[in-house]
Amino acid sequence: MANGRLGIWLIGARGGVATTATVGLCALARGLVGEAALVSRLPALAGLDLPGWNAMVVGGHEIRGGGLRDEAQRLAEDHRAFDPGLVRQSADLLDEADGRIRPGTLIGCGPTISALADMPPPRDRSPREAVERLKDDIRRFSEAERLAHVIVVNVASTEPPVAAERVPDSWALLNPMLDEPSGCPLRASSLYAVAAIELGCSYINFTPSLGSDTAALDELARTHNTRHMGRDGKTGETLMKSVLAPMFHHRNLRVMSWVGHNIFGNLDGKVLDDPVNKAGKVASKDHLLREILGYAPQTLVSIEYIESLGDWKTAWDHIHFQGFLGTPMTLQFTWQGCDSLLAAPLVLDLVRFTDLARRRGQVGQMTFLASFFKSPQGVTEQGFVRQFQMLEQWAAQA
Amino acid sequence: MANGRLGIWLIGARGGVATTATVGLCALARGLVGEAALVSRLPALAGLDLPGWNAMVVGGHEIRGGGLRDEAQRLAEDHRAFDPGLVRQSADLLDEADGRIRPGTLIGCGPTISALADMPPPRDRSPREAVERLKDDIRRFSEAERLAHVIVVNVASTEPPVAAERVPDSWALLNPMLDEPSGCPLRASSLYAVAAIELGCSYINFTPSLGSDTAALDELARTHNTRHMGRDGKTGETLMKSVLAPMFHHRNLRVMSWVGHNIFGNLDGKVLDDPVNKAGKVASKDHLLREILGYAPQTLVSIEYIESLGDWKTAWDHIHFQGFLGTPMTLQFTWQGCDSLLAAPLVLDLVRFTDLARRRGQVGQMTFLASFFKSPQGVTEQGFVRQFQMLEQWAAQA
Amino acid sequence: MANGRLGIWLIGARGGVATTATVGLCALARGLVGEAALVSRLPALAGLDLPGWNAMVVGGHEIRGGGLRDEAQRLAEDHRAFDPGLVRQSADLLDEADGRIRPGTLIGCGPTISALADMPPPRDRSPREAVERLKDDIRRFSEAERLAHVIVVNVASTEPPVAAERVPDSWALLNPMLDEPSGCPLRASSLYAVAAIELGCSYINFTPSLGSDTAALDELARTHNTRHMGRDGKTGETLMKSVLAPMFHHRNLRVMSWVGHNIFGNLDGKVLDDPVNKAGKVASKDHLLREILGYAPQTLVSIEYIESLGDWKTAWDHIHFQGFLGTPMTLQFTWQGCDSLLAAPLVLDLVRFTDLARRRGQVGQMTFLASFFKSPQGVTEQGFVRQFQMLEQWAAQA
Amino acid sequence: MANGRLGIWLIGARGGVATTATVGLCALARGLVGEAALVSRLPALAGLDLPGWNAMVVGGHEIRGGGLRDEAQRLAEDHRAFDPGLVRQSADLLDEADGRIRPGTLIGCGPTISALADMPPPRDRSPREAVERLKDDIRRFSEAERLAHVIVVNVASTEPPVAAERVPDSWALLNPMLDEPSGCPLRASSLYAVAAIELGCSYINFTPSLGSDTAALDELARTHNTRHMGRDGKTGETLMKSVLAPMFHHRNLRVMSWVGHNIFGNLDGKVLDDPVNKAGKVASKDHLLREILGYAPQTLVSIEYIESLGDWKTAWDHIHFQGFLGTPMTLQFTWQGCDSLLAAPLVLDLVRFTDLARRRGQVGQMTFLASFFKSPQGVTEQGFVRQFQMLEQWAAQA
Repeated sequence: MANGRLGIWLIGARGGVATTATVGLCALARGLVGEAALVSRLPALAGLDLPGWNAMVVGGHEIRGGGLRDEAQRLAEDHRAFDPGLVRQSADLLDEADGRIRPGTLIGCGPTISALADMPPPRDRSPREAVERLKDDIRRFSEAERLAHVIVVNVASTEPPVAAERVPDSWALLNPMLDEPSGCPLRASSLYAVAAIELGCSYINFTPSLGSDTAALDELARTHNTRHMGRDGKTGETLMKSVLAPMFHHRNLRVMSWVGHNIFGNLDGKVLDDPVNKAGKVASKDHLLREILGYAPQTLVSIEYIESLGDWKTAWDHIHFQGFLGTPMTLQFTWQGCDSLLAAPLVLDLVRFTDLARRRGQVGQMTFLASFFKSPQGVTEQGFVRQFQMLEQWAAQA
Repeated sequence: MANGRLGIWLIGARGGVATTATVGLCALARGLVGEAALVSRLPALAGLDLPGWNAMVVGGHEIRGGGLRDEAQRLAEDHRAFDPGLVRQSADLLDEADGRIRPGTLIGCGPTISALADMPPPRDRSPREAVERLKDDIRRFSEAERLAHVIVVNVASTEPPVAAERVPDSWALLNPMLDEPSGCPLRASSLYAVAAIELGCSYINFTPSLGSDTAALDELARTHNTRHMGRDGKTGETLMKSVLAPMFHHRNLRVMSWVGHNIFGNLDGKVLDDPVNKAGKVASKDHLLREILGYAPQTLVSIEYIESLGDWKTAWDHIHFQGFLGTPMTLQFTWQGCDSLLAAPLVLDLVRFTDLARRRGQVGQMTFLASFFKSPQGVTEQGFVRQFQMLEQWAAQA
Repeated sequence: MANGRLGIWLIGARGGVATTATVGLCALARGLVGEAALVSRLPALAGLDLPGWNAMVVGGHEIRGGGLRDEAQRLAEDHRAFDPGLVRQSADLLDEADGRIRPGTLIGCGPTISALADMPPPRDRSPREAVERLKDDIRRFSEAERLAHVIVVNVASTEPPVAAERVPDSWALLNPMLDEPSGCPLRASSLYAVAAIELGCSYINFTPSLGSDTAALDELARTHNTRHMGRDGKTGETLMKSVLAPMFHHRNLRVMSWVGHNIFGNLDGKVLDDPVNKAGKVASKDHLLREILGYAPQTLVSIEYIESLGDWKTAWDHIHFQGFLGTPMTLQFTWQGCDSLLAAPLVLDLVRFTDLARRRGQVGQMTFLASFFKSPQGVTEQGFVRQFQMLEQWAAQA
Repeated sequence: MANGRLGIWLIGARGGVATTATVGLCALARGLVGEAALVSRLPALAGLDLPGWNAMVVGGHEIRGGGLRDEAQRLAEDHRAFDPGLVRQSADLLDEADGRIRPGTLIGCGPTISALADMPPPRDRSPREAVERLKDDIRRFSEAERLAHVIVVNVASTEPPVAAERVPDSWALLNPMLDEPSGCPLRASSLYAVAAIELGCSYINFTPSLGSDTAALDELARTHNTRHMGRDGKTGETLMKSVLAPMFHHRNLRVMSWVGHNIFGNLDGKVLDDPVNKAGKVASKDHLLREILGYAPQTLVSIEYIESLGDWKTAWDHIHFQGFLGTPMTLQFTWQGCDSLLAAPLVLDLVRFTDLARRRGQVGQMTFLASFFKSPQGVTEQGFVRQFQMLEQWAAQA
């Protein structure tokens, strides 16, 4: 049975996704809202022994100041993301969670993210020192709240991509690099992963940043008997791609071009306006078509910051495909979803499933969570339904 | 091995789907076009021993006059469905196929379809007499062309629906009704099915009409050691529904309303402008959401005849769903596909798979073909990918 | 100068448009919101001497109970139409306005509207008696609030259409019919018009109902030295038509078909679900294409009640036009607007312009207001910009 | 009366627009097609004495080889732009026109356009030498065909933009620069303009390139008693902007953001894939919103080359605007038009109107043609209907 309280440690704890996940958890715990959008509440998964809404406590790292409650209010009122009443009715719990937020690290985040840091973290002399500081924060959270387990979830902004060849494949080679003040290839997302894993916490990377997606960190996780998964939560346009591409594929309708334009105006969008940070995101949204279709149609993915849209991400996709006798046909879709609201419930789901995986004794990459990610670690299947079947099969293992 | 030539007997042989299937078969046989949109040419199904494009001969029943070549030209030039050059280069083959078309039957087709019959068929004194006449036509086709097997495919316009309770469940009870000039509940689509089955031919119903979708005809098929499947080819908007609804379901995004407006201007559209004929179509397009989602969102399906669109069916769907914390979100899509071109390759695929099923000795409902139909007979699964997996599994049976 | 306070008497005073207009007026008077969407606040019209937000008082007739404040809250929270804070901050003013609402009349409204009447009005023995009762209400409002002028605005639900030939062209012939308990062709919208006009009030018909759109009532208005205009506020899809059709026309792009599907879920939508009431609306949305283009393309207008959309009317229009060398091309648009919010500011604008027309001594139809209406009385020009120029020219008359 | 034959000299004579204009002129002269999309054939302009389809002869400059007939066939068959039968039936006329095409100039066209030149023009030692060579070609065309007048129309690809301050305001200062081999700021589009004007020909610039849009060339035109106009034909997305923006403006609906994504796959698109060439185009598509609205909403315009679309330009625009009480609303449109077919009839219209302006004795900028251009020279009005009224008024001048 799920016993003991569970800690959710959010990286980017005052960002839109984290704030919404925290508001949502409070609202669920108090019975203020329904359970729509929570995969872990599907009837098909009803038999699983997952932690209840009251059994989870939120803390996290952040580089920006401001309060969680203010952020929630902005989402509710300025972005029209959810009912402002939920913020009022959860104000005390939000303030408590806010008190558990500690300064994060900016190592390797790049100038655009660093510029956001109005609550700049302590200067760490090496990545190792940063990792140790982060571990301290998480350890104290765990002790103070008497937690059975802590799951670290990265929901911070997208870092500039890391050249894969710069990261050695084994922990033995990577480990000493943490002591180098400037030669270490790991960015913040991976340092949080190291911190989590060395503490035996689970680690989930909901962003396109590298996080734990490297052989050395998987090795570290297995050594520490813990588990991890990522990367980049699949919430909107890419979810649609992973749903529609199998249709074109199974019907042998040859996709000639697939154009996707995304516009939105939240902080994530501002960070992605930096072409360096955007590069990682676009790559993450683009590869799966090729993998599902078995060939490479012309693709175009744009992500643009349009301030007035706030958290409402609008995607227009234009799919041009060849039908029988070579005739071109078209499918267009427009997706209008609130970004944080699409991501936040998945964060809660991932935490709940991960906790059960822990109790089942699973270590290493949690490939059964593939359906949640744009680039699921250790998984080649990119079609959504087949990925979901992996979750169903996992759930069916008594 | 696939030996002997295969007959394709099309009901509605000069309609848009039949004409396109015939043009396509000619063009494929002569190597004029690629194999896009043919499911049976997917790499994943490459190992199957299916009949080649040159091994199939087309004939059929029709109630309208005019020539196949004229119809093909109209599709190519007026409707911009495909390259007019294909018609010129297949003219001789089209004329030959046209010569194999025989007058069909109007029994139970309703006034709108009957009004189209500018080549009115002989008056049959009873359904039985019609069936015998139709059998004669198919038998002669088979003999004249020295065919190993004939597969009858209904691609005629949608009939008015039949009240299910009027059709008895056993052949013993249904059989004598065929002798009643007016008391027989079967419409043309089912009479063609009876004719096909009694001859040991396979029967495929690509339309929303009843066809063989009744226990008595399944019994008859088993008795005659033959096979059948239907109904209503899943080509456009409903295909999209069977692809998208599982996404909403698996993500627990509650669909509040799903509105689908279809506009097009081909003959099928004219027939569906009759509310009686339309009723069957709309029901066929609507039920699967409920079955996939497990609850009934508000749905609206319209199909309207807009002459200028010709064969280009345009569907706009607006899906309103509830996200996390109850916030409403929206997905819209516009599908612009050429109706006949979407259906025709599936007709060829169905024929090829059915022939292999015959050689494998399968009788009764061919449930492995579920992914091709809006209302697959004998199948409860409505999600497209899971239906396609049924085809993959069937293909994998050596 | 605009002196004396102005009364706005709303027919359907607790409906969505009236409620939003009232909330808006309160919010404007208290400086809680900006002046977006108010035509009368355009820089180009800045020089006009129009009544200020504090100089207008709202009252009205209604057949439904419930409170204005509840209705406003529903719009703000359930329909996400506007900030719930506005309702809280205007609560006292809304309650005051609610106290000035009097029971209307159901004469000629048809069964669908009558079924909504949970606050059924007194039974009037004849149309005349109803008119006298309505006049009494308006007269008392005017006296109690010491108003310089009252403008009656019909924003009630759409009535079943009236056959034009049943309404005599002269007041002398129409007047005696008001005494017939059942033979009078006038429906409620026209009875309110008679009441307003006989009192010397101005009358505006924002709905597709007949209202004052008949020669006899125009004659009556001139006799009573007052003014009137209508009908059917042009707020969304039809506004788009009056903007886009001139483009197609001036470019000689032949519109082959124009399909417009409207979905929404407010009370207005429920009433329009009755095909009799809907008939008037569809006619009102459809005629202008023909008039602008000079020929009749195939058109289709649907209006469907989709509950989950609430006040958010979504329209999808598909315009199929013939380009050079006969090639068909397509324009599609999706309009997502909040119905009451689109209508309400126009109501306030109309009232302000009408009051200035009064002070300028204008009587009869106010054709300069054409740009506000789907079917502007006394105007043949249907193109939006040219209609707007009529307003500019009027404004320029010192 | 329009007497004497009229010459149309196209710059970019084998490009998509020129080819379509030439095919169209042939087809119109032979009565093969209707007159859809020809503004000059509007009933409202019927009284004007404009040259007939048989009275116009086409020639031009080009830097690419290939034949006009091949180009036309590609448009008809690969791009599905128009009926291939038109090419067959006009083959002789197309070949004749092809024989009148002379090598153009690459001066100032930039590397992307120059790379297309598979028929590289003679190397001119100075801009002056190029101008004299171009004049020679046009003069010979005029003499050989015994033309009453020649109108030079630039429909070539978009050049890199020219910094306005580099072009002197008077001809006296600009003229000597033509003798400098490298210091002259004029690009090809302006050299063609100089050539045309010095010959007394009319000059029309249908592209975003500079052409005659500078005071010195307007002065030159007045000196030579001729006329000119530009620039950048308004055919699709920008036409829509000039139609829709006045609606938002006149309704005081504050546009917060206007995003426009354009995708297409013709040669023009390939040239615009060069960011230098694209810069001029985007500026041309963007400015008018600001000018119509009176403030600057956030705008985004993308133009991307998607090969499979060929000549079919698809634009998706997302307009986010603020309604009453500050509530955000959305209008989206998708425009699917065949680029060359939208432009070509306007070229023919411009030529016909320009010839009448000549016979009416007009010189300098032809501002009455504003409605045809994205950036009409000498005109501040950007709203489409008001621009069209300028044409109507011009037409009404007997």
